Amino acid sequence: MQHALASAALDALIRSNYLFVPFDDAQFAQIRAGMRVLRLDENQRLFDAGQPAERFFLVASGKIKLYRVSLDGNEKVVEIAGPGQTFAEAVMFMQRHDYPVSTSALEPSEVCSFDSRVFLDLLRGSTRLCFSLLGDLSMRLHARLNEIEHLTLQNASFRVVHYLDEQIAQTPDGRHVIDLSTPKNVIASRVSIKPETFSRILRALADEGIIRIDGKHIEVLDPARLRHYGT
Amino acid sequence: MQHALASAALDALIRSNYLFVPFDDAQFAQIRAGMRVLRLDENQRLFDAGQPAERFFLVASGKIKLYRVSLDGNEKVVEIAGPGQTFAEAVMFMQRHDYPVSTSALEPSEVCSFDSRVFLDLLRGSTRLCFSLLGDLSMRLHARLNEIEHLTLQNASFRVVHYLDEQIAQTPDGRHVIDLSTPKNVIASRVSIKPETFSRILRALADEGIIRIDGKHIEVLDPARLRHYGT
Repeated sequence: MQHALASAALDALIRSNYLFVPFDDAQFAQIRAGMRVLRLDENQRLFDAGQPAERFFLVASGKIKLYRVSLDGNEKVVEIAGPGQTFAEAVMFMQRHDYPVSTSALEPSEVCSFDSRVFLDLLRGSTRLCFSLLGDLSMRLHARLNEIEHLTLQNASFRVVHYLDEQIAQTPDGRHVIDLSTPKNVIASRVSIKPETFSRILRALADEGIIRIDGKHIEVLDPARLRHYGT
Repeated sequence: MQHALASAALDALIRSNYLFVPFDDAQFAQIRAGMRVLRLDENQRLFDAGQPAERFFLVASGKIKLYRVSLDGNEKVVEIAGPGQTFAEAVMFMQRHDYPVSTSALEPSEVCSFDSRVFLDLLRGSTRLCFSLLGDLSMRLHARLNEIEHLTLQNASFRVVHYLDEQIAQTPDGRHVIDLSTPKNVIASRVSIKPETFSRILRALADEGIIRIDGKHIEVLDPARLRHYGT
């Protein structure tokens, strides 16, 4: 009984991954029939780079580390896959047929493995399925690019606010001012952002009434809000 | 002459986009034959939501805004596409055949438009092309997810460093100390990160010799490096 419930939860987890969305129930049953569930201990390896890539994987629980080992023996972590995430599915679509990375469990983990051939045969038989997957992947890529844009800007805001906070001087009458005599492009380079991003963030801070810009001088109207801007 | 050069540069820009990578020269020439270059003025619209989606686009220069207009007339920007970026290619792979968003130029822009039917017919004729595109999209998605993970952690580091910087007290003998008597999960929630991320960043700061953790007390060994950590 418990097994049946766990199995339903597992199916829900699998079907929520974009790779399985385009398939109808009968097709999914075909893919599901070739599935194996593997239990890995901490540090247990799943496959090594160079092994034939006949299966792809979805993490049911735990964390799987994907890594490369350089010639001097150093390990470079390429990715850490958590519950619901897939790995080694990109190599299935490619001409090469061996895994480009090695994998091991960072903690006790359960991993579902799928037969790549069954999956590809279904796609090969239906352009509609291929296109559906391409459409979903394109949309996901756009969404992630948006997220990166947002995070980068948020990150840049932290840097700028941090910089401004360090430059605040108090005038004898208790106002908080910043002397922006350093050229904007120098400041921008010092905080590792583009000059136009620096200007954009200053404008946003002025729009929100946190600072007032007067040529090379900035009056900080609300130092507390400045310090917490973006958090 | 200038036109020929510009055309070669444009081809290089187009071919560097993932959508065109799988095609050989003859196939690319077919897609290229149906291409139109549109010049848009600032604020000029390209298409509106609901119009039939027969073409997809690549920005050659400038910036194109993709947006939705809500029932109350408010505009929500979905994405801003810059040089080399494509838009409306996801809808080409889907069952729906109208644009889900409206578009206009944020600045004077040049946009290449491509005939979706020509592109799809090539893919339909070759599973290898479909798979090549799927493989490339999967890899790109993995890379972007990694980037998001990295940015999120960097962002979290800024928040934590900022918080710690605010808490520093100086002892009579000139040491810099922080009293961490507030529970970690409360601090983590205050700076909008997960408790385990907070712990991970503290550990990283200790590993780098910037702080020394002693139970609920932190000694800041290097306040200047703390302040600039991650920048």
